[in-house]
Amino acid sequence: MILEQVDEEGAAGLVAPPANFGMVDAGVYRSGFPDAASLGFLRGLRLRSVVYLCPEPYPEANAAFLEAEGIRLFQFGIERTKLQDPYVSIPVDAIVGALRVLLDVRNHPVLIHCKRGKHRTGCLVGCFRKLQNWCLSSVFEEYHRYAAGKSRLSDLRFIESFDVTCLRDCMLRLIYRYHDCLQKSKRLQYDVR
Amino acid sequence: MILEQVDEEGAAGLVAPPANFGMVDAGVYRSGFPDAASLGFLRGLRLRSVVYLCPEPYPEANAAFLEAEGIRLFQFGIERTKLQDPYVSIPVDAIVGALRVLLDVRNHPVLIHCKRGKHRTGCLVGCFRKLQNWCLSSVFEEYHRYAAGKSRLSDLRFIESFDVTCLRDCMLRLIYRYHDCLQKSKRLQYDVR
Repeated sequence: MILEQVDEEGAAGLVAPPANFGMVDAGVYRSGFPDAASLGFLRGLRLRSVVYLCPEPYPEANAAFLEAEGIRLFQFGIERTKLQDPYVSIPVDAIVGALRVLLDVRNHPVLIHCKRGKHRTGCLVGCFRKLQNWCLSSVFEEYHRYAAGKSRLSDLRFIESFDVTCLRDCMLRLIYRYHDCLQKSKRLQYDVR
Repeated sequence: MILEQVDEEGAAGLVAPPANFGMVDAGVYRSGFPDAASLGFLRGLRLRSVVYLCPEPYPEANAAFLEAEGIRLFQFGIERTKLQDPYVSIPVDAIVGALRVLLDVRNHPVLIHCKRGKHRTGCLVGCFRKLQNWCLSSVFEEYHRYAAGKSRLSDLRFIESFDVTCLRDCMLRLIYRYHDCLQKSKRLQYDVR
């Protein structure tokens, strides 16, 4: 990717990633809401899908970009948590649904974003890390880094209490399907020869 | 990688990434100094090299880990910048040397680290982003995120003034060598058939 970007952009054209942009894992990115200036950068990522975590409809300019690039939008509308109500809860179903999208490599490369890339995105990535067996202190450290001084206790509680066992089955099914895919493509190769 | 980790670690064993760990790009990671608890996590990354940015010798336990895993150590000793002296300068040669290692995909996956993963690592990643044509405001945003409230003006000045043109030639040579490698391996494949 590094070499490709230089190849495409040349020395002159600067690129502007969306605010709070970061790489979560191979094929998984996170950010705040992508503005018009960042669409050129996103084009370079050759995204296959976007996981959008706000309930508001996707703005027209962004939707047009996705359509032009053939990027699939998965929307899981999560209301903005209120700072004054630390006990408001993130809907577990939305996070589970979004995790299913993230776990399926056929959706990669995928960009997760909400409004600021801090709280809703932070919760989803935190649960994703739990699935990757990260210890909670490391999960929280990463959450704090992207929350940039705006960490919310309710988010940390949500991540801590999120039960990943419900998704283990989903992961195992995906692993089997993935292995099956690999075997099929191998068989196809043998057939050709 | 996601599926492999789950496969290896199972549901029980938690992993602890080093402090301030993050993914810079495909095959490029950054962190603070890896402690004993994080070596299991690093094993999962299947690193091929480490770029170490402190002048102190590599601790025995970490060196033994690298040897056992067949990971190559590239050390570029950069003295810790002093907060009270904002005009102390990072050695350009060390950053250029480290960037050459990062740009060569034969060294990937690679982990960059210093002591806290904030200042020296932040400067190197900042220069790497300039090579990727990131606009300066995005480069600084990322620097601040990992510096976690300990940003240093001298680092920001260094990144801003770092001239990437000296490395463009190096990148082009690498692109050619890489293409050449690809062609050679293709030829080898044809020979075998």
